[in-house]
Amino acid sequence: MISAETAHEHIRQCVQALPGVRVPLNNALGLCLVNAIVSDVDSPPFDKALLDGYAISVKDKSPTLRITEQVLAGGVPHHAVEPGTTIRVMTGAPIPDGADAVIKHEDVHQLKESLIQFPTKGVVEGGGIMSRGTSFHSGQEVLPAGKSLTPIDLALIAELGKAKVQVIPRPQVAVLATGNELVDVGRPVGPAQICNSNGPMLLALLESQCVKTTDLGIGRDDPEMLHQLVQQGLKADVLLITGGVSAGVMDLVPGVLEKLGVEKVFHKVRIKPGKPLWFGKQEKDGKSTYVFGMPGNPVSTLVSFELFVKPMLGMLGGRGYSTLSTMTGRLTDAKQYRGNRTTYFPCRILYDAHARDKMPVELLPWGGSADLAAMTRANALAIFPAGDYELPAGSEVEVLTLSSSNVI
Amino acid sequence: MISAETAHEHIRQCVQALPGVRVPLNNALGLCLVNAIVSDVDSPPFDKALLDGYAISVKDKSPTLRITEQVLAGGVPHHAVEPGTTIRVMTGAPIPDGADAVIKHEDVHQLKESLIQFPTKGVVEGGGIMSRGTSFHSGQEVLPAGKSLTPIDLALIAELGKAKVQVIPRPQVAVLATGNELVDVGRPVGPAQICNSNGPMLLALLESQCVKTTDLGIGRDDPEMLHQLVQQGLKADVLLITGGVSAGVMDLVPGVLEKLGVEKVFHKVRIKPGKPLWFGKQEKDGKSTYVFGMPGNPVSTLVSFELFVKPMLGMLGGRGYSTLSTMTGRLTDAKQYRGNRTTYFPCRILYDAHARDKMPVELLPWGGSADLAAMTRANALAIFPAGDYELPAGSEVEVLTLSSSNVI
Repeated sequence: MISAETAHEHIRQCVQALPGVRVPLNNALGLCLVNAIVSDVDSPPFDKALLDGYAISVKDKSPTLRITEQVLAGGVPHHAVEPGTTIRVMTGAPIPDGADAVIKHEDVHQLKESLIQFPTKGVVEGGGIMSRGTSFHSGQEVLPAGKSLTPIDLALIAELGKAKVQVIPRPQVAVLATGNELVDVGRPVGPAQICNSNGPMLLALLESQCVKTTDLGIGRDDPEMLHQLVQQGLKADVLLITGGVSAGVMDLVPGVLEKLGVEKVFHKVRIKPGKPLWFGKQEKDGKSTYVFGMPGNPVSTLVSFELFVKPMLGMLGGRGYSTLSTMTGRLTDAKQYRGNRTTYFPCRILYDAHARDKMPVELLPWGGSADLAAMTRANALAIFPAGDYELPAGSEVEVLTLSSSNVI
Repeated sequence: MISAETAHEHIRQCVQALPGVRVPLNNALGLCLVNAIVSDVDSPPFDKALLDGYAISVKDKSPTLRITEQVLAGGVPHHAVEPGTTIRVMTGAPIPDGADAVIKHEDVHQLKESLIQFPTKGVVEGGGIMSRGTSFHSGQEVLPAGKSLTPIDLALIAELGKAKVQVIPRPQVAVLATGNELVDVGRPVGPAQICNSNGPMLLALLESQCVKTTDLGIGRDDPEMLHQLVQQGLKADVLLITGGVSAGVMDLVPGVLEKLGVEKVFHKVRIKPGKPLWFGKQEKDGKSTYVFGMPGNPVSTLVSFELFVKPMLGMLGGRGYSTLSTMTGRLTDAKQYRGNRTTYFPCRILYDAHARDKMPVELLPWGGSADLAAMTRANALAIFPAGDYELPAGSEVEVLTLSSSNVI
């Protein structure tokens, strides 16, 4: 049995980012750039009007200016601004030659349809103009390699005229729930049977991590059936299996995995819940598939996912092995603890934007690793290191926040 | 021109949550429950074994116990545990009649294939058993109405045997970028033209809010073409239009909307960037469509989205009109401010998990509402109220965090 830290180290050592692919911008949200984005254009590509008004030369002191044309956004001026003349421009239009300012429509006195008085206010050289290359210029690095693309980044890449980007793709993750006691939700439940909750939970956790999923359904505790389903799952980048990894007579998963050439990296971690966790890797035809054999109880599966699967997906996606998002809070009530493994206990951080001290943390009544109902109220897991001790109310406690508790 | 607060109030007043629909669990992540979920089963549905071991009666002091059968998870015991006997049970199996504890496999001394010695340690009534209804019982409310469903909630609903849930559906949002200067990214860019960046940005912002999108592409500044595209967009729950809402000669959008029966709620808000924002509502055949006419500059569009569209989507989705996520930070450098509108300025909160005071906030060099490049480095917008003042370095400043900056 290894510690959680050693398990993290093992995963970090053996997982590599997926190879980059070129995808259209509308498929790239949240994905990591393989290379820096360097612009090959200036932005804006020409001096452009920032408002609706009149393009003038500030040195021109003619008492009136004749309007020679009107240029809309997307249009091209046919004249230059000569002494005694002006050109009407709309926001986004290119600035005509000879002009060095745009005067707001409201600041101008119109004498005739095509004649305005030279304005007396708001005349500043460069006023109302965004000069070519203000935002960025050709040759400039505008986004660094490795950046996870936000909507703003995608807009910027579109502005550069690039329709595709080289990114680390979304991993494909297959999910298989095993156990003779399981039935698909919606089917009749026989005596001694329960509905498969691990499958739907993992698929939703993966959906919230923006990966692609394959649902392999339920595998009976039968070596041949499991062999076939696991083989199918190994086509993905990651295979998550629940159940069948303890030491019971029907815990067939490690054997099936071994037979299919999945090399064990570790089995059993000194955590509660989640002890029976199995992790391994298959290399075949130049492709790696990573396999987690997760405990059958849903809370154990959730904890294994938050602790190990999520950072591993970050590694595969090119974001590096993310550190767990923990924070320090204070227990609202005393807690007597006794255990030889680190326990992750469902709790609620009582967020208070005006708190001057650490946030209060309330431990939730919890029936153990099969009690999912308690978990629906949790927004974090309180971490209790192995030992035999009592923590008085107000003690500091480390908590792991659950990203899955605040999906919109 | 109205204040941002008044604009929020207008939107809150006129937007209603979409009517509920029944969807399968795998389509319900992040959606809001219309009604509370009440269980009509106990969980677990029977007393079940928490570990692999032997079901015994603690009162039975027979020196040896004969194993009468083995019950796997999903199996049903055929015998009761009688004095002098035990039944081997696997994790998840139902507890046989007559048993009141399960003894761990490792704590038992096996004499023959079907005979064990009565264990001397670990014998506690109820040990190794999760009693029927421990997690929840029939008739109990397990999830409140209005809850936005997390992966854990979905697992719990699956455990209850419910394959579908009544939720507020994802809104359908159509996006239309307007302007003669725009070309689709990937197409040749003529003189005075720029690539459409607002469209890709809005579609990605919407994707990160888990709504369904329709891309209407680019509309030329032509009343007939706009009429047709807007008509198509009005089939959605929300229509977002960029460009054409200022007061220029080609700002045709408000006129087209009015002609199509979209009632104006407000036009122009005292904010920078984002002043020309237009908001209205169409009611037709018992269905409402909400329309935002957003400014054409991409940073203005982003700010309008973060300030107004996002909370409005929350309202439509049944999560209520979410308050903006602001926090107080401290300026790293002095700032001279002068303006008659509240300004939202791109900045970077320099997060520090160990900070004892407010987070430092660095204002980014920014070329105005058409400068998107600066925005890619921002994780927040610093809010400067209208006025003429200087803030020394270290001054407190209110910032609006950008959710779009941390999509995974």
